[in-house]
Amino acid sequence: MPNVYAVIMAGGVGTRFWPRSREKSPKQLLEIVGKGTMIQNTVNRISDLIEPKNIMVVTNKIQKPMVTKQLPNLPEENIITEPIGRNTAPCIGLAGLFVRRIDPEAVMVVLPADHIMQDEEEFRRLLRLATWVAYESGKLVTVGIQPTRPETGYGYIQVIDEDDGKNPYFQKGVFKVKTFAEKPNVETAKVFLESGDFVWNSGMFIWRVDAIMREIETHLPEMYQELLKIDDAIGAEDYDNVVETTYKIIRGISIDYGVMEKAKDVYVLRGNFGWSDVGSWDEVYRIAGKDENGNSVTGQAFLHNTKNTLVYSGTKIVATVGVDDLIIISTDDAVLVCKQGQSQDVKEAVDYLRRKQKVDYL
Amino acid sequence: MPNVYAVIMAGGVGTRFWPRSREKSPKQLLEIVGKGTMIQNTVNRISDLIEPKNIMVVTNKIQKPMVTKQLPNLPEENIITEPIGRNTAPCIGLAGLFVRRIDPEAVMVVLPADHIMQDEEEFRRLLRLATWVAYESGKLVTVGIQPTRPETGYGYIQVIDEDDGKNPYFQKGVFKVKTFAEKPNVETAKVFLESGDFVWNSGMFIWRVDAIMREIETHLPEMYQELLKIDDAIGAEDYDNVVETTYKIIRGISIDYGVMEKAKDVYVLRGNFGWSDVGSWDEVYRIAGKDENGNSVTGQAFLHNTKNTLVYSGTKIVATVGVDDLIIISTDDAVLVCKQGQSQDVKEAVDYLRRKQKVDYL
Repeated sequence: MPNVYAVIMAGGVGTRFWPRSREKSPKQLLEIVGKGTMIQNTVNRISDLIEPKNIMVVTNKIQKPMVTKQLPNLPEENIITEPIGRNTAPCIGLAGLFVRRIDPEAVMVVLPADHIMQDEEEFRRLLRLATWVAYESGKLVTVGIQPTRPETGYGYIQVIDEDDGKNPYFQKGVFKVKTFAEKPNVETAKVFLESGDFVWNSGMFIWRVDAIMREIETHLPEMYQELLKIDDAIGAEDYDNVVETTYKIIRGISIDYGVMEKAKDVYVLRGNFGWSDVGSWDEVYRIAGKDENGNSVTGQAFLHNTKNTLVYSGTKIVATVGVDDLIIISTDDAVLVCKQGQSQDVKEAVDYLRRKQKVDYL
Repeated sequence: MPNVYAVIMAGGVGTRFWPRSREKSPKQLLEIVGKGTMIQNTVNRISDLIEPKNIMVVTNKIQKPMVTKQLPNLPEENIITEPIGRNTAPCIGLAGLFVRRIDPEAVMVVLPADHIMQDEEEFRRLLRLATWVAYESGKLVTVGIQPTRPETGYGYIQVIDEDDGKNPYFQKGVFKVKTFAEKPNVETAKVFLESGDFVWNSGMFIWRVDAIMREIETHLPEMYQELLKIDDAIGAEDYDNVVETTYKIIRGISIDYGVMEKAKDVYVLRGNFGWSDVGSWDEVYRIAGKDENGNSVTGQAFLHNTKNTLVYSGTKIVATVGVDDLIIISTDDAVLVCKQGQSQDVKEAVDYLRRKQKVDYL
């Protein structure tokens, strides 16, 4: 069996969850759904498969203290920091340097820190299968999500769902990728959904570290050269300086656009485990438990003549009278009142605060 | 000219302004509209007519420290406390005892502490006129409000608006009361409004202290006997005990029901000075200044795609996204989100908190 390492990407700033998410406490470090923070749940979800010493987190300097505090079982050296966010390709490449030094044939499981899965057993079954395929084939593997609606907020992956004799894993439910598709408009999304051979791009990847580093070298050769400079500095005194300098030069690009779309023979599994990337307050309401009036309350609240409303009261009490279809989020210093279905515009509030340099609220 | 004393009634608990109003800080002690608390504005409004040493406030023990603090120009002995609220008749009778000891012929101007008037000059003109009529005639005088809508939340007063030769003040715009009417239903309220000879009962009264005490003696003889016991105890050691005992016995009744409706030859002036009793958050929104989207904001707020919404942010920031017709009130420990037009149900929240004995929020 291969060595398996998890790399949890946890650098996001999560402005869509303002006023709960802040620069110092973004979405992945919050209890958004149920018990435990999202990153804690991400670690716990894979702890049957991957032991803590093999779980790495890539985050930034501001968030590192909170990450360390929330994940006390992880060795501190497993918390890798980036000086600045440069999208997923450099993040994965940086983590890959550390894994490759331990074992070039190790399998890397790359997971966002802020997704949820309702059927965790099925998720782990798929990860085990993906790990085996990635190790044996030496190819890149990703987990797609069986779509349930014509969502325009995700990229899609078209799979080859007929057995062409070139896919030794076909019988196991592992497909070859036909093509990656950008976020579609709603008409295209409907076509994708009806066609049956498209899945959502979840941002979860499984590969041998030698495979992904080779692909980065092939498709992002400049970035690869910069990563080698960091590799040379690992363990040296000037490591932080080298990383800082490198990240200033390096181009921000996603692993999807920079590598996956260009790589050959990518495998994809169909995920069907109640996945959500919990991308907005609307989505939190969608997946939350609700009472007979469609209300979902966290904290102290009194709801009178109120329907289909999400309330998070923080340390206060929230009272509602005669309202429908709202999202009400109260924190120690801010209150958000948002119409259901419009929570994508919460970022407008964050932009406003940034423009007005109200840094205490950011 | 007579001695003129003001008696400001400030005992209300104002549950309709939760979460801003609390037992210790009811509506009259808050800045609800514009600058200054309502009781401060009530005092300032009459300060051209009545000097501070002649202004008395009747309140309760819980509120007395705040009243004293907010009205530093009033002598402390002018802040009279009731051990328990017993409606307006005992309140007025108690204050009357103190005024009568100074000057039985003094004119008492009785004012609620929590009303606003947009045209304060006109209000003072009417008070001067009422004071003169009350002093000269020895009759009870009240200020009615020219109605602007078929309001069902107020009592009405029908005036005799034809000169019957029995009213020496008719030419001055001072009318005899024909009858007092309870809060009407909406059909009746429409009839009242259209008839032109009904005004709203504002709860403001002007009379010589000997006149009102005589009327109390006539129409509420039991209460009058109890008041005499208090009168005997004024200045004595057991004053507090006597008041406490008396208020346990005394019947709670309004001056309107107990005296005004039964008294003969009551005069009423037509008030036309932009009056409001600021009875609810809806009413605050109605009289507040608004921007081009119909929003009225006090404090820090960011309103995105938001219309006809009242926001009070307290020490926090409030952000709204895509909402209409709301009342949003944020305090240090509570948030209210209420649909416009339903703020009468805010008391449901207060009732809930009382039932649950959440005394910190009351």
